[in-house]
Amino acid sequence: MTRPLTIALDAMGGDIGPDVVVPAALATLASRSDLTLILVGRADVIEAKLEALGAKGRAGIVVHHAADVVGMDESPASALRSKKDSSMRVAINLVKNGAADACVSAGNTGALMATARFVLKTLPGIDRPAICTAIPTVRGHTHMLDLGANADCKPEHLLQFAVMGSELARAVDGVERPRVGLLNIGAEDIKGNELVKEAGALLAAAGELNYIGYIEGDGVYLEPADVVVTDGFVGNVALKTSEGVAKLVRHFMTQEFKRNVFTRLVALVAMPVLRGFARRIDPRRYNGASLLGLSGIVIKSHGGADELAFGNAIRIAMLEVEKAVPQRIKATLSALHAERQAQ
Amino acid sequence: MTRPLTIALDAMGGDIGPDVVVPAALATLASRSDLTLILVGRADVIEAKLEALGAKGRAGIVVHHAADVVGMDESPASALRSKKDSSMRVAINLVKNGAADACVSAGNTGALMATARFVLKTLPGIDRPAICTAIPTVRGHTHMLDLGANADCKPEHLLQFAVMGSELARAVDGVERPRVGLLNIGAEDIKGNELVKEAGALLAAAGELNYIGYIEGDGVYLEPADVVVTDGFVGNVALKTSEGVAKLVRHFMTQEFKRNVFTRLVALVAMPVLRGFARRIDPRRYNGASLLGLSGIVIKSHGGADELAFGNAIRIAMLEVEKAVPQRIKATLSALHAERQAQ
Repeated sequence: MTRPLTIALDAMGGDIGPDVVVPAALATLASRSDLTLILVGRADVIEAKLEALGAKGRAGIVVHHAADVVGMDESPASALRSKKDSSMRVAINLVKNGAADACVSAGNTGALMATARFVLKTLPGIDRPAICTAIPTVRGHTHMLDLGANADCKPEHLLQFAVMGSELARAVDGVERPRVGLLNIGAEDIKGNELVKEAGALLAAAGELNYIGYIEGDGVYLEPADVVVTDGFVGNVALKTSEGVAKLVRHFMTQEFKRNVFTRLVALVAMPVLRGFARRIDPRRYNGASLLGLSGIVIKSHGGADELAFGNAIRIAMLEVEKAVPQRIKATLSALHAERQAQ
Repeated sequence: MTRPLTIALDAMGGDIGPDVVVPAALATLASRSDLTLILVGRADVIEAKLEALGAKGRAGIVVHHAADVVGMDESPASALRSKKDSSMRVAINLVKNGAADACVSAGNTGALMATARFVLKTLPGIDRPAICTAIPTVRGHTHMLDLGANADCKPEHLLQFAVMGSELARAVDGVERPRVGLLNIGAEDIKGNELVKEAGALLAAAGELNYIGYIEGDGVYLEPADVVVTDGFVGNVALKTSEGVAKLVRHFMTQEFKRNVFTRLVALVAMPVLRGFARRIDPRRYNGASLLGLSGIVIKSHGGADELAFGNAIRIAMLEVEKAVPQRIKATLSALHAERQAQ
C-alpha cells in the first residue's frame, strides 16, 4: 500500500496547543498537496478549531482522538505511566505502527523523549537518543547535539552523537562529508576535560566521520563545522546562554532606541533594517529539534512556538522522512561497527 | 613602612605588550595620584616607550627589569621551568614578597595560572584557584566562575568557587548577601548532571552563602544572580559561546546596514544610537578576570586588550586590593570550615 507522506501532530502539546497546531497544519497543507497531517488530540476541540477556521473536512487533514494531555511540567515517569492515551503518546504510536512517517510535538521535552524512546526504541548501536537542532552561524547554520537529553555522557555516546549529527547534515543539507567538530575549551593549558579528550580520540579514529577537531564556544558561530558534538549538559548551557545573549542584545538595543525623542525618530527610520536584522536571528526559523537515534522520526517544537515556528517543525519532519534519516544513521553505525571489528 | 597602593604590571604580556601596557599605566596614574605602578619587563624597551610618550622619570612609575617573556602559546610547564626571569613571573614574585599589592598580566592564561599558583600558593581551604569575570546582564552584571582553569571539577570545588565569587561580589559591588546561582540545564526531566546535583546540596547547606538555586544558561543574563558558579569547562564554553553570539549579531547587523544605498544612509543616521549600543556590550569595559583562591591578587587581562581595556584590568586590581578580597575569602572559608566541623 502506498499512501501520501503522513505526519502525526500532537495537537494538544505546547503552551498554546490546537490554536497553534491546527492553523500551522492548514498553512503547511496549503503549500504541499501530497501530504496528510493527522491531528492527534481531543477530537471535539480539534474539530471545533477546524470549523472555526472554515476547514472542516479539509482534504489532507485527519483527526485522531486521544483523550489525555501530557502537562508541560509533568514528569516523564508520570507521562509514561499514567498518560497512555495522551495526544503525545498516540502520535508516537502512529509512527510506531506505520500509520505516520513522523510526528511533531511541542509538548514537554523530557516526557517526549522518554515516551518516544519507550515506544519506538533506539536504533541498533545507539545507547541514547540525542536532541539536535540547527543554529544560525556566519556561514549559514550548524547542527548541534546533544542539547539536553543526556546530562552525563561517556566518550562512546559522543561518537554516536557524531554519527547521528553527521547523517542528519548529510541528509537535510546535502553536504557530502559534513565537517564534525567537538566542542571544547581554550587552546591554553588543560585542553578539555577527560570526556572530551577520550571522545576526540574516538572521533579521530572513525573513518566514517569527517572529524575536524575541537571547536571552542565562539567557533560554534564562526567556524565552518556542519555538526558540533557535545554532551547534553554543555550543549544545553551553550544553547540557552546564546538565547540569553540574544535577549540581552535586544534589551540594550531597545533601551538605546528609546532613550529620547531623537533616538525614537532614528528607530523609525531604521525600522526596515532592524526588521531585516531581526529576521536573520528569528528563532522561529530554526524551530524544530530532532530526537535522533530512535527507530522513527520525532520532532520537538518549542513549547511557545507560534504558527510560523510550528510550521517549520513540520517541514523538518517532512524533510527527514524524505531523506530517510533514521535509515541512514542505522547504515552508518553498522559500517562503523564493522570497521571497528576489523581493527 | 607604609607605601602607596602598588600594582605590578607584566609589561611584556599580551599580543601587544608595552605599547598597550605603558600608555595604560600612564592613563591610570593620571586619574590616581596615590598609586605606584611597577612596569615589569625588558627595561630598555619600557624606558624607550616611556621616553617616546614623554614620561621618562614620571612619578608613580617604577621600571623593574626582567629579561624573559612568556610566549602566548607557551605551555605552563615550559613557562614554569624555563622562564624564571620572565616579566610574568617577576611581577608575581613582587606580590609574593610584598613589594606589590597585586599584579596584572595579559600573558597566556595557562602559564599565568600555573605560575601564580606555584609562587603564591592557594589560600587555606582552597584546592584549586578559579578564573572569574564580571559579565553584563539586563540588571547590571554578574560574576561567573570558573571560566576555564578547572576542566574537571568535584562538587567540593564548586562550593569553594561559590565562596570565592560571593566574597568578590560582596567586596567589589558592596552587595551584603550576594545571590549565588548554580549553572544547570532545563527544569525538565533530568535536572542536571551528577556534579551539579551534588554541588547543589553542598551550596544549599552552606550557611555563609546566599544560595538561590539553579540558573539556566539564559538566566545568566536575565536572572538576578550576583554570582554564577559552574565548572571550568562549562563556564568557558558559556563565555565563549556568548562572545560568538555577539560576533554573529554584529555580522548580521553589518550585513543588513550594508545591503544597499538606503540602508547605508540609515546606518549614518543611526550611528549615534548604534554607538551607544556598542558601548553597552563593549567587552573592554569588562576586561580583567580575577584569579581567585590565591594568597595574592592576580588579574588576567585579555591578550588582545587595548589601552582602555588594560586600564580596566588595573582598576579591578586596585579595587580588589582596597577591599582585601583574598583576606575575605580566607575568613569566610574558615567560618565555613568551622560550621561544617560543628555539624
